[in-house]
Amino acid sequence: MKHFGICFAAFSAAMMLSLTAYAQFGRPAPASLPEGFVPSEANLSGSLYPAVNPKTRQVIFQFRAPNAKQVSVNQSGKTYQLTKNQQGVWSVTTDPLEIGFHYYTFNVDGTDVFDPNTESFYGGSRENSGIEVPESKEEAWYYHFNKDIAHGQVRHCRYWSEMNGVERLCRVYTPAEYETSPDKKYPVLYLLHGGGEDESGWEVQGRVGDIMDNLIAAGRALPMIVVMDSGTPRSFGASRAKNGVDVTKIFVDELMPYINKTFRTLTDRDHTAMAGLSWGGVQTWQTVLANTDKFAYMGGFSGAGNFSGPGAVQGANTPETAYNGIYKDKDAFNAKMKIIFISVGTNEENPVRETYKILHDYGIKNMVFYESEDTAHEWLTWRRSLREFAPLLFKTK
Amino acid sequence: MKHFGICFAAFSAAMMLSLTAYAQFGRPAPASLPEGFVPSEANLSGSLYPAVNPKTRQVIFQFRAPNAKQVSVNQSGKTYQLTKNQQGVWSVTTDPLEIGFHYYTFNVDGTDVFDPNTESFYGGSRENSGIEVPESKEEAWYYHFNKDIAHGQVRHCRYWSEMNGVERLCRVYTPAEYETSPDKKYPVLYLLHGGGEDESGWEVQGRVGDIMDNLIAAGRALPMIVVMDSGTPRSFGASRAKNGVDVTKIFVDELMPYINKTFRTLTDRDHTAMAGLSWGGVQTWQTVLANTDKFAYMGGFSGAGNFSGPGAVQGANTPETAYNGIYKDKDAFNAKMKIIFISVGTNEENPVRETYKILHDYGIKNMVFYESEDTAHEWLTWRRSLREFAPLLFKTK
Repeated sequence: MKHFGICFAAFSAAMMLSLTAYAQFGRPAPASLPEGFVPSEANLSGSLYPAVNPKTRQVIFQFRAPNAKQVSVNQSGKTYQLTKNQQGVWSVTTDPLEIGFHYYTFNVDGTDVFDPNTESFYGGSRENSGIEVPESKEEAWYYHFNKDIAHGQVRHCRYWSEMNGVERLCRVYTPAEYETSPDKKYPVLYLLHGGGEDESGWEVQGRVGDIMDNLIAAGRALPMIVVMDSGTPRSFGASRAKNGVDVTKIFVDELMPYINKTFRTLTDRDHTAMAGLSWGGVQTWQTVLANTDKFAYMGGFSGAGNFSGPGAVQGANTPETAYNGIYKDKDAFNAKMKIIFISVGTNEENPVRETYKILHDYGIKNMVFYESEDTAHEWLTWRRSLREFAPLLFKTK
Repeated sequence: MKHFGICFAAFSAAMMLSLTAYAQFGRPAPASLPEGFVPSEANLSGSLYPAVNPKTRQVIFQFRAPNAKQVSVNQSGKTYQLTKNQQGVWSVTTDPLEIGFHYYTFNVDGTDVFDPNTESFYGGSRENSGIEVPESKEEAWYYHFNKDIAHGQVRHCRYWSEMNGVERLCRVYTPAEYETSPDKKYPVLYLLHGGGEDESGWEVQGRVGDIMDNLIAAGRALPMIVVMDSGTPRSFGASRAKNGVDVTKIFVDELMPYINKTFRTLTDRDHTAMAGLSWGGVQTWQTVLANTDKFAYMGGFSGAGNFSGPGAVQGANTPETAYNGIYKDKDAFNAKMKIIFISVGTNEENPVRETYKILHDYGIKNMVFYESEDTAHEWLTWRRSLREFAPLLFKTK
């Protein structure tokens, strides 16, 4: 909910520091941590553990459970057994982990429990613990706070949804200049989270505020509004875990009118984009390709309208037939869609690679493929994807 | 982080429903819950438990831990032992609880753990589980979403703090008309959380957005900006749990200039107020009474600059000597402070009662005392306190 991360204020100064010193920007390594380890950025302020070694990328997990018989930690599908010391504190030092943000869960005698030492992150359809394995300082600048630039805001907005029969919460990033340019209108990127996550994902795990602030301040991206809503239609008693439902109607008929009424937006298709990660990529394809009069840009981060695999276009697994044959008139389609962005982490198996190739070979233009080095089906892939995607937006004539 | 509560859209219709039907506004009672019980409003959507009986105010807690020997739940200082069924699910039905929002924690064989079925609430210096025991519909209207009124936003803003050496996160409520009246400036209420909580408290547990939206729409409160920052000065490695530190300098020298630079504010003392709950009330007295040139209104909800008890004015426990003798020139003080609001729940012991009496008897004017019926040192007392306090603000000539 409330990431209060490390600061990259003096980023240029940071460039001159060693890797170890860099990690200490967040919190200095207290004397009581083993040599080379620092508290994870995702920890509550003051919590030493989990601790991470930025050089080796190993993590020490700790959990106090004096009376437990067995404690393990599950991190990105790999399970480590912890061992208990005389004070009843269990701990383990992991193998080197992948860089980036990871969810994790302790298991105490068969029951999953959270780590009370980290912030809370909604993922896996519940509140979860999280850890940051830092990457090199040259890479990490864009998702950290820089005190020397102007900062936008992430606004929590609620609107009534007749379709859901409840109020819905969306988060809206507005760039810093939105406050000081009261007559200017802005293009809009609709940005979706993944399965089992919610509208908090991009603000907290995704650090959308820092990414957009940094890209805009660096002149790489145009000032824009970013709208993050829940990709899950909700109804009384229905689970937020119900992934995979098409949100096209809610987005187009309820969310977009609400946004255009409430914010100073450029509402034409040339100034409207949609992107999503994982299942949110599938939802992006569903929504945009059914509404090409409203969107000219789309992105799928580790997820898209695939021809095979989970979320594949039902009963239409060729470019000729998919999405009611929209790809078939290539000239018309290529004239319409200004950017089709597809990305994936090098460490994940994902049908989006095939999707890109099929569409590219079929003759779809304006496609951009980005591969994130050394990252998995996790948030660092998606932070980087936004860093690559946002600069492409709203610039094509 | 992300309260997605029940809807009071059809509030007038709700008035005609029975108490049981009312509670079903949030989520209908699924067949699998015992007669009379409904999921708590604070649950993740789809979670049946904890379940609450709005009539009897009893709660059923459940926790799955097949291999545990003992599971208990601590709710507002009272501990209940749970018993295990054949599926390894522990449960207990409590005595009638007090109305309102309560933190709670499970204890499994000696280790505190959260309930994976509720939203996450920062309190007690960590993420916590929470439950809502609903009060009568006549009382609860003001902190629920009403689809028939205009809604403000809660903006998450970050600013650089030289004093802390880190960025700080504040949340800023802007009224609905802030978006549509670009030339209008607004008064500001600085609103503090309590010990062990943070800047998320008033948005999530406190439901500040709904309270302000409803009061403004009803014509009871003037449109105003509400600023919620952390009452904890932070530094690298320092715990958020470090309560009780004076935030006067950060608020006056860093936060207020940031707010006045970023938002369209009325900056004079007649349009600036501060209030806080519990320890935030103590901090309010510290800040306002050292800066009466900047504030004309102050409120202490279950906390204030007391003459005895925790947070009592150090070495100055009489009205003559407290706060450098500021009360002593009564005429000057009474001319300056337009409202001094003190509140408390009927079910809590609290020195603010004495504080009110001492100041009142001493001759301090413009004091308002409010007692919240049947509530404790908890968030329902403070939601009600804001409901009573906000309408008093910025109206005195």
